[in-house]
Amino acid sequence: MPVIEANDPSLQSWAEVPADSDFPIQNLPLGIFSTADRSARVGTRIGDRVVDLAVLADAGLLNGLDIDLACYKSCVLNSLMRHGKQGTRRLRARLSHLLHADNPELRDNPDLRTQALVSADHVIMHLPVNVGDYTDFYSSREHATNVGTMFRDPKNALLPNWLHLPVGYHGRASSIIPSGQPVHRPMGQTRPDPEAPPVFGPSRRLDFELEMAFITYSGKPLGERISLDEAEEHIFGLVLFNDWSARDMQTWEYVPLGPFLAKNFASSISTWVVTLDALEPFRTSGPAQDPTPLPYLHQEAPHNFDIDLEVAIAPEHAGETVVCRSNTKYLYWSMAQQLAHHTVNGCNIRSGDMMASGTISGPEASSYGSMLELAWKGTKPLKMSDGSDRSFIQDGDTVVMRGHAQKDGVRVGFGEVRAKVLPPHA
Amino acid sequence: MPVIEANDPSLQSWAEVPADSDFPIQNLPLGIFSTADRSARVGTRIGDRVVDLAVLADAGLLNGLDIDLACYKSCVLNSLMRHGKQGTRRLRARLSHLLHADNPELRDNPDLRTQALVSADHVIMHLPVNVGDYTDFYSSREHATNVGTMFRDPKNALLPNWLHLPVGYHGRASSIIPSGQPVHRPMGQTRPDPEAPPVFGPSRRLDFELEMAFITYSGKPLGERISLDEAEEHIFGLVLFNDWSARDMQTWEYVPLGPFLAKNFASSISTWVVTLDALEPFRTSGPAQDPTPLPYLHQEAPHNFDIDLEVAIAPEHAGETVVCRSNTKYLYWSMAQQLAHHTVNGCNIRSGDMMASGTISGPEASSYGSMLELAWKGTKPLKMSDGSDRSFIQDGDTVVMRGHAQKDGVRVGFGEVRAKVLPPHA
Repeated sequence: MPVIEANDPSLQSWAEVPADSDFPIQNLPLGIFSTADRSARVGTRIGDRVVDLAVLADAGLLNGLDIDLACYKSCVLNSLMRHGKQGTRRLRARLSHLLHADNPELRDNPDLRTQALVSADHVIMHLPVNVGDYTDFYSSREHATNVGTMFRDPKNALLPNWLHLPVGYHGRASSIIPSGQPVHRPMGQTRPDPEAPPVFGPSRRLDFELEMAFITYSGKPLGERISLDEAEEHIFGLVLFNDWSARDMQTWEYVPLGPFLAKNFASSISTWVVTLDALEPFRTSGPAQDPTPLPYLHQEAPHNFDIDLEVAIAPEHAGETVVCRSNTKYLYWSMAQQLAHHTVNGCNIRSGDMMASGTISGPEASSYGSMLELAWKGTKPLKMSDGSDRSFIQDGDTVVMRGHAQKDGVRVGFGEVRAKVLPPHA
Repeated sequence: MPVIEANDPSLQSWAEVPADSDFPIQNLPLGIFSTADRSARVGTRIGDRVVDLAVLADAGLLNGLDIDLACYKSCVLNSLMRHGKQGTRRLRARLSHLLHADNPELRDNPDLRTQALVSADHVIMHLPVNVGDYTDFYSSREHATNVGTMFRDPKNALLPNWLHLPVGYHGRASSIIPSGQPVHRPMGQTRPDPEAPPVFGPSRRLDFELEMAFITYSGKPLGERISLDEAEEHIFGLVLFNDWSARDMQTWEYVPLGPFLAKNFASSISTWVVTLDALEPFRTSGPAQDPTPLPYLHQEAPHNFDIDLEVAIAPEHAGETVVCRSNTKYLYWSMAQQLAHHTVNGCNIRSGDMMASGTISGPEASSYGSMLELAWKGTKPLKMSDGSDRSFIQDGDTVVMRGHAQKDGVRVGFGEVRAKVLPPHA
């Protein structure tokens, strides 16, 4: 990887950045926002302010990047992303330069600055991309082992294919929603009594899954594969991903073709896409892989990222209780391996495709990434701040996931993905 | 359902329609075509001619339908379909009127007629819609029973959930391709020897699956369901669907989350969307459902359609051999049930979503909809026209699927979906 100047820990911005902010000048994520008087458009974030890239483009400050200026006024990032990693990298370098403490271009232009920088409290954040296809992997060994132990055989918790390939399946793109949008508890078929016929009603085992998802640039034509070494060139950035799951529906429906209605009622994502470039300083090796994967999945260089994650639950009218602290570095299969596997059969990817990691559970019980595991199938309920117990998610609960990486005094974060659970639609 | 005048078997067009054509005036499917000097746009088909709706719109012949004329110049049908069933129904009625033998508007305007009607031999057909999400069901009892018998237990061939809900899973939208585009044999992991590690190479068990897919109009907001009685109002039309499958990859990868790389390398569809309105005369009852489904899936009226289907294989440099004759009426779960089930948890659908039936196998061995079943796991190879045997699909083979309904002297058909299998990409 080339050295990326915009990651220099000594960089400071003229814009104010609170000490614990996820959004210093080293981050510069991209997202889509609107305000009461601005239609949806592209922005980045510095501290507690959103920077309006349409305003910067109109002022000529984004000229010379070989990026069509109309992209900044689009209501999704897809057209911007069609300029590829070199395009978004040029944009990030320019934004870093514009926000740098020593650069007067924007700093000393109060009118433009006022117009371009909007308080994050005054914006509505939207889905950052039009998701063409969404794939969910199952790449945490600890999660797969926990599930296999609970539902199958503790001695053979991992299925035979698990250590040989990053197991994945297709999910629903239409129901991916931005942080803040509430989720209705799904109705559906379950079979609580295996000797009796199935019944219809609201899910009684609504769960979250702590995941991260990467968003792709365009790939290659159908029939051609993306090698592991090429994979990260096709990855734009990451978001936090809550893969809402109705466990009771899943148990009844998923054999033999996988999860369907248990998942596709909603998936919530954080709205700032943190680029892979911004995460470069936090690169790390993943768990040792034994057996050695087949050559198309073999990786030498570190392809994991050290990102601290947490999940909190806030019951209605009560404060948050953090129920899980995990880290993306625990993932057994890297994003590069996931993408190389996904395309090895010639499957094509498009700008805006989303690929989630699967539940990110770590080795400790406190790092398990779902209520199913944290409360161990309901046998170990968790205590909330208001004294109530939780085995699964209740109506009125708000689930919040947060994530950030930290090193050399620099914190690069994702903000949060937050959603309140409402009763089923009337 | 209202009586739909455009289905009247006595209707005749001034345009020539060969006796065995799939495209009489009672059909009027919609599709997207281009020519050497026309960009992709909306067309319908009458006999061996494609009717250019952009030309008709420019000539004012499609005025008054409350449809934005720009829709006819779009390279996908999605924007036209956003006018809903009432919109596309008005369009079909107008096209029926314009092509009617007694109507001189187009018939007696030779310049316009020449411009609007193009030989089907001179057009390139494209994907009719931008597919937002693609779902594959598993709705043939005979197919599910055959697969269960081969791979699990003949005495318990159907899994416990199968008779209670239309099993389905999400598929890949990006790799859905139009008839005529070749398919590369996929590379991937398989485990031919269950005692040895997996190996990497070209699939050795490449198969087709004979399916039909329906395309949806927009649905309801996320969280709201479409009832069974409402379902067909949200179904635009159908296409033939070849769900290419790599059986050896599928066997190794599919537990526990379902098929992934074994399917997502390509799915081929026919390019004319035959509307549900045009299929109305061919409505029929499906198989009796025992046990009675839960109330949200209970149907009284006939929701199946009597459409004859066939699959042929043409080895390289050899003629076609028909290997399967089946019918959509065999499907146990109807499209209305599939859509009601898909949305019962609040999952939202969008204009252009595609939902395939699953392999349509009938009761006779000659009606099985895949090579896996026809050649019964390779134990009963089929004889081709050139004397060669087939247990699965070979490089150089072309697979062709055709379908049509026929009643009261009227034949409403889909044309074909055709694809040649090429070796893996170099």
